[in-house]
Amino acid sequence: MSDINLKKVAGKETMTIAGAGPVGALLAVILGRAGYQVNLFESRPDSRLHSIYQGKSINIALSDRGWLALEAVGVSEKIKANAIAMKKRVIHALDGSITEQAYGKEDQAIWSVSRSGVNEALLNLAESEPSVNTFFEQRLSQVNFNNATATFTHDKQNNEVAADYLFGADGAYSKVRRLAQETPRFSYSQSYMPQCYIELTIAAVDGAAGDERFKMEKEALHIWPRKDFMLIALPNPDGTFTCTLFLNFESTTSTEPSFNSLKNETDITAFFHQHFADAMPLLENPINEFIQKSANPLFLVNVDPWVVNNKVALIGDAAHAMVPFYGQGMNCGFEDCRELSLLIEQYQGNWAAIFPAYQQARKKNADAITKLAKRNFVEMSELSGEATFLLQKKIEAKFSELYPKLWTPLYSMVTFSPHLPYAEALAIGEQQKQIMQTLMADLKQITDLENCWQEDFVYKKMYDLVITSPLASA
Amino acid sequence: MSDINLKKVAGKETMTIAGAGPVGALLAVILGRAGYQVNLFESRPDSRLHSIYQGKSINIALSDRGWLALEAVGVSEKIKANAIAMKKRVIHALDGSITEQAYGKEDQAIWSVSRSGVNEALLNLAESEPSVNTFFEQRLSQVNFNNATATFTHDKQNNEVAADYLFGADGAYSKVRRLAQETPRFSYSQSYMPQCYIELTIAAVDGAAGDERFKMEKEALHIWPRKDFMLIALPNPDGTFTCTLFLNFESTTSTEPSFNSLKNETDITAFFHQHFADAMPLLENPINEFIQKSANPLFLVNVDPWVVNNKVALIGDAAHAMVPFYGQGMNCGFEDCRELSLLIEQYQGNWAAIFPAYQQARKKNADAITKLAKRNFVEMSELSGEATFLLQKKIEAKFSELYPKLWTPLYSMVTFSPHLPYAEALAIGEQQKQIMQTLMADLKQITDLENCWQEDFVYKKMYDLVITSPLASA
Repeated sequence: MSDINLKKVAGKETMTIAGAGPVGALLAVILGRAGYQVNLFESRPDSRLHSIYQGKSINIALSDRGWLALEAVGVSEKIKANAIAMKKRVIHALDGSITEQAYGKEDQAIWSVSRSGVNEALLNLAESEPSVNTFFEQRLSQVNFNNATATFTHDKQNNEVAADYLFGADGAYSKVRRLAQETPRFSYSQSYMPQCYIELTIAAVDGAAGDERFKMEKEALHIWPRKDFMLIALPNPDGTFTCTLFLNFESTTSTEPSFNSLKNETDITAFFHQHFADAMPLLENPINEFIQKSANPLFLVNVDPWVVNNKVALIGDAAHAMVPFYGQGMNCGFEDCRELSLLIEQYQGNWAAIFPAYQQARKKNADAITKLAKRNFVEMSELSGEATFLLQKKIEAKFSELYPKLWTPLYSMVTFSPHLPYAEALAIGEQQKQIMQTLMADLKQITDLENCWQEDFVYKKMYDLVITSPLASA
Repeated sequence: MSDINLKKVAGKETMTIAGAGPVGALLAVILGRAGYQVNLFESRPDSRLHSIYQGKSINIALSDRGWLALEAVGVSEKIKANAIAMKKRVIHALDGSITEQAYGKEDQAIWSVSRSGVNEALLNLAESEPSVNTFFEQRLSQVNFNNATATFTHDKQNNEVAADYLFGADGAYSKVRRLAQETPRFSYSQSYMPQCYIELTIAAVDGAAGDERFKMEKEALHIWPRKDFMLIALPNPDGTFTCTLFLNFESTTSTEPSFNSLKNETDITAFFHQHFADAMPLLENPINEFIQKSANPLFLVNVDPWVVNNKVALIGDAAHAMVPFYGQGMNCGFEDCRELSLLIEQYQGNWAAIFPAYQQARKKNADAITKLAKRNFVEMSELSGEATFLLQKKIEAKFSELYPKLWTPLYSMVTFSPHLPYAEALAIGEQQKQIMQTLMADLKQITDLENCWQEDFVYKKMYDLVITSPLASA
């Protein structure tokens, strides 16, 4: 961290980055190494000096797109050392029985990482670049979209910061984006989901060491799918699990539970015991937590353009805040950074070319993953508990093993194919959906549906469908 | 107009309406007659006292939905006296040749009315209600969404206005809506079209009287469809036409004209002479106007919910600003008012029931017409100049004459069927589109496509398609 010292370095273009979260910090590393003078501003205190997370562990899922971007700046190993591989979903049914679904092949996993841990590793890396300065507790109040000048406020004092270009990496509630809404012809949407969420915790086993500390299967993402709502749990290196309860804000029928309908302790207790009986002995004071915490909203953001006047650009959640159901929010933000770095190289620092190419390359992919993430609530909360869905997953996985060139499951394309753009994954996924609908309708004729995934004729049938579809020529 | 005098009348609930445009004024009439104390606020000066339109005639299209609402309050005849029936589209091709398309049956028309004329008639009517007070030059600055109190500013003085309920009828740039964006879980989108517009004028014939004053066919909406852009003209009672040029803000290819690409007089002159040769002798200084006027944006707005806390509601453009290509913006706003008045009656003034029913009834219909309006740019600018499109229109019209119970063209459902909800019109239209696609593909086999609409077998074929479709059972 530096004192404010914004003299322009001779011959270098200057970049302001608003927001020093994971995306802003990674962007600072990339721009610093690309030869720019970078000033990175954050409204909150430096989490490395002040414990602003109050001991709360917010964890997120990192997968191959995120790792690819982190590898490119050489920080992936350091972060992976504190990450937990989640190789499968563990599904907790209402009766307490457990089913497992592998996320991909044997060696594939998504990773539970601590958001603050990733952020701090990237901040340390950014500050190791001589041309990057970081400034904390600086609240953005104004942006001049014609010349990229921004005003930051610290201790009631305004600092006007000149720059050649400015990036808004300031997250889902981006101030840069809110100010951009006043510029001409700026299309914007914020859509709220019917669900809200609260975080709950499963403590580690007292006095235990190593993997013995985990009260449930460690290397897994746990789901309690209950159709209109669900509970999930991600492991932390200290043996705890961070859980999230997703539940409608308001009831749509008189019997459906919601944050609004569960008002008193009796109702809340009955709700937890009825729907999450096997989790109750594990959760720490869920009833109290439910009563004391206010429900957080879930929303998605769509913005067009991402770049104003070829001077100010949005990146990460500021450009495409999405819902968390595909575990791709941070991965997509990191991919924004990596693709931008490739464009800086390709256009040799000519921002009049880089910015339009950036918007062109990224917006369609962000739109695709935003759509997929929204859709995935249904898969997680409903379909993952359904026999037909599980059967379909098994068939897809086996067909993909038999004909790897013809079929990669959508989840794997999104999560484990970092060089395939999200938009292409979505388009292929749509083709696959049609084929699976046809196939599953055909298979419904068969009596022993449960075991039919082991039958050769299923894959012959599926092969015929695929080979006559547009997928075969792709 | 009254001085501010906001004492609550004993036993009456009080309503604040923000915005005294046509929708706000009509709503004031309805609420006043329903027994409420109404305070109607407008930020601009009273156009009846100050010529705020600077002689500019802004005209809009009124059709059956609008008339139905105006009839319900007894003001339709007064407004129709100054309206011009437009019974058809007159299409001006690039070579100057003219084609006509009737909008509906012989006695059906859409009406060109002056926006300020309609507004002033409704304001006069509102002020004739003893329980309606109007206040001009009062700018809304704050709304308390819990108790419907609002703050209006006049001459730098703040007036806090208490009410039982508040309506935001303050148009496409609604301040009530902007403030509502800060309330929890308020979904909002504003989407800009690639096109912008400027208004141009065709003067009346000097010294002529009556219909002789019109330089073109009077009872028509004139269109110069040019695919990526278009010019339209609507008649005014004084013999002038108000024209609107819709053109992309930025070019998408190097040869395509746009507001941004047409920079100097030579280019602009060439553009007008090349694309609107037959209109050039009629238009008043289009080149100068183009240079001096700045392009106005076109955008649509989608909001959910329309009602906050059962205290504050949006209505008209504030709830559903749309693009002007279906001529339904004001009609939809008037329909909002009419349906609200029916709900007030149905639920006997119980707003805890009226508001949810209002949102339920209106949002899906506003969504439908917003979608149709956006889509209609293509019909107006491109398809209306195309031979296949004209043929299709002819076939639809004739089939509808032969089988009126089986087929009403989509345009007629939207425009001339005021009791059919927009959402149902859209749904039926989707069915029709599929049938017409099948039919037109079949007819493409025939050599003499141009005259095939006179052939009986066409209608036999179409009848078979319709009678086996879901339309037959509707």
